[in-house]
Amino acid sequence: MLQLSQRGVALPASPYRKLSPFADAARQRGIIVHPLNIGQPDIETPPSMLAAVQQADIRVLEYGPTAGTVSYRQKLAGYYQNLGLDVTAEDILVTTGGSESISFALLACLNPGDEFIVPEPFYGPYNAFAISTGTHVVAVASHIENDFALPPIEEFERKITPRTKAILICSPNNPTGYVYSRAELEQIKDLCVRHNLFLLSDEAYREFCYDADFTSALHLQGADDHIVLLDTISKRYSACGARIGAFVTKNKALRDIVFKLAQLRVCPPGLGQLLAEAAADLPEDYFDHTKAEYLARRDLMVSRLRGMPGVQCPLPRGAFYVLCHLPVDDADLFAKWLLEKFSYRNETLMVSPASGFYATPGLGRQQMRMAYVVNQDVINRAMDCLEVALREYPGRWE
Amino acid sequence: MLQLSQRGVALPASPYRKLSPFADAARQRGIIVHPLNIGQPDIETPPSMLAAVQQADIRVLEYGPTAGTVSYRQKLAGYYQNLGLDVTAEDILVTTGGSESISFALLACLNPGDEFIVPEPFYGPYNAFAISTGTHVVAVASHIENDFALPPIEEFERKITPRTKAILICSPNNPTGYVYSRAELEQIKDLCVRHNLFLLSDEAYREFCYDADFTSALHLQGADDHIVLLDTISKRYSACGARIGAFVTKNKALRDIVFKLAQLRVCPPGLGQLLAEAAADLPEDYFDHTKAEYLARRDLMVSRLRGMPGVQCPLPRGAFYVLCHLPVDDADLFAKWLLEKFSYRNETLMVSPASGFYATPGLGRQQMRMAYVVNQDVINRAMDCLEVALREYPGRWE
Repeated sequence: MLQLSQRGVALPASPYRKLSPFADAARQRGIIVHPLNIGQPDIETPPSMLAAVQQADIRVLEYGPTAGTVSYRQKLAGYYQNLGLDVTAEDILVTTGGSESISFALLACLNPGDEFIVPEPFYGPYNAFAISTGTHVVAVASHIENDFALPPIEEFERKITPRTKAILICSPNNPTGYVYSRAELEQIKDLCVRHNLFLLSDEAYREFCYDADFTSALHLQGADDHIVLLDTISKRYSACGARIGAFVTKNKALRDIVFKLAQLRVCPPGLGQLLAEAAADLPEDYFDHTKAEYLARRDLMVSRLRGMPGVQCPLPRGAFYVLCHLPVDDADLFAKWLLEKFSYRNETLMVSPASGFYATPGLGRQQMRMAYVVNQDVINRAMDCLEVALREYPGRWE
Repeated sequence: MLQLSQRGVALPASPYRKLSPFADAARQRGIIVHPLNIGQPDIETPPSMLAAVQQADIRVLEYGPTAGTVSYRQKLAGYYQNLGLDVTAEDILVTTGGSESISFALLACLNPGDEFIVPEPFYGPYNAFAISTGTHVVAVASHIENDFALPPIEEFERKITPRTKAILICSPNNPTGYVYSRAELEQIKDLCVRHNLFLLSDEAYREFCYDADFTSALHLQGADDHIVLLDTISKRYSACGARIGAFVTKNKALRDIVFKLAQLRVCPPGLGQLLAEAAADLPEDYFDHTKAEYLARRDLMVSRLRGMPGVQCPLPRGAFYVLCHLPVDDADLFAKWLLEKFSYRNETLMVSPASGFYATPGLGRQQMRMAYVVNQDVINRAMDCLEVALREYPGRWE
């Protein structure tokens, strides 16, 4: 019999999109489904960035350089330099989205069977990235009680084995919204140096810090060879569909390997790079406006959630997600029930149950993630639905 | 000590681009280097396809559907149907270039340690795709004496082990230009059915057949679950930089796995899909013009090569490459010498030594690949250089 690969069979479905069929069915019944499940910003892509593609003079849409165009890499280096990071164009390999950057890191730093440590809850697809690269996620639990702060560094150290090759962090964190402090990052860096580990730092939400100062892994001193920045323009410029990210490291030997991996796909998307390059010409206050909007949404969503009996909601200091505790038996069942059985004023909401963000079975069962990527009117409507739903849900459980 | 992955270290550099530093150095010395090393067409991307992107009304460049937009998949299905293939939009997953399609196939059909059989010489990066997916290339040699036709099917059968999961073919072939006949494809298909193997068919050059009828693997009957078409728009529409390909199969279980892999990168490039979708509106005779141009170039290059003493050049019936035998000791040394030591009228040429297209060490040592993706004037100039070079090269060897 024709057999599919075990790794393929073992892959989990996306925790964000597994409820899509139920949402489609609800919409077909005429119900308005508010999509809080996925981090797709509704903020408009800067028109000047789109114009850069739309006005470009292209005769042949050729293969570009494997590491990305020189002009874009130079401008991106300038962006990092403005953040106080010592990054040159040579340190950057432009990737096809942040996702490719994650794959490259795991393929280049880990062998099959090797492990990387991640604080959980974490960006759900890390599980599937591990399976597709033959590596293993080892999770260290963070806790809602202290806003999902970095777990004690001793807990990381206890999980280190001869197969551990890296620690992967995400700050500002998806799904928790926590922003690691400089002191926390220094602890992780020291541990990586002590145990010869790579520090892989997913900073997709760098610009979205509200009540915390952002520190990049590349701000840390004395560990240049260990640190890899995994980046993307998706959230920064509301340009998810461009599929442009970056793999950034001062480690030349690592870059050389990633370059060979990158040669397999010849080059990153050319049109997306034109768009990304134009970000350099955005006005200096571009992020102020976007951030102010997200901040207002966050405050609204958090205050609405905190007004619901039995809901526990930490203040997410960055990114654009809320990870909250609900008074329900099982957030997976609740999320499905919202789409299958519930509506209020002919509306309902789609959320991401948190189980998909944990590696340890059973953790996060009463938690769910919502993205505040919709306007305040929609947030209010969705929260109205949630409030009623929590009263009506038959599986309510304090 | 911080260690990089063994698989990363083991990756070969691209056989097309490994001479780039020498070409750059030659250019810095003021020498014109004719780039025959890489399959980057100089044919212009259809302006109507570029216009589709440039005139699109985009407010937010959002994530698209994981499998590609419905509208593009429907139009792409129409393209396949026009070729007489029974393909619907559901059978298609749009990929980020043909390269992603190859990775998906190896990850979904093979486990680490599994093998796939490929006629050699083959598209060089297959070696690196194997390393990055933990799989193994098993090569069956084809021969210049019979234009690199399909080797006897018994030779494939002899290489089958319990770890063999697929046969990978490329037709029209890169680098040989050979186009498999229907009868040859039927033999491969029967073998795949008999031994429960997938038949992975890379058809990137489908439109470029000059003296042979094209047969797609999907034209074959009675093996729907086995057949996977690996496709790309790069060569077809001279749109290499768009990074749009496709993974096409009637095997639903396989598609489900590839869909989960595809969720890792959320979606293929959005701007590239807009461009690709507009291909549906090209005039029916679009390929006629392009093909006529390539045919004239092929005939010119082949006749020039056949006029050089000691050069053996089969007639490539498809794609846009010539793989020829040279009277030199080692094509790798010769190709480097062309860039480092040689010039004629202040010009030289960059080629791809064939060693990078073979898995078996030592094979193809006197062969090199040249792409006829430059105009006829440049081909003549490059062939003038080659003719002189073959006389002057100190390592001449009949």
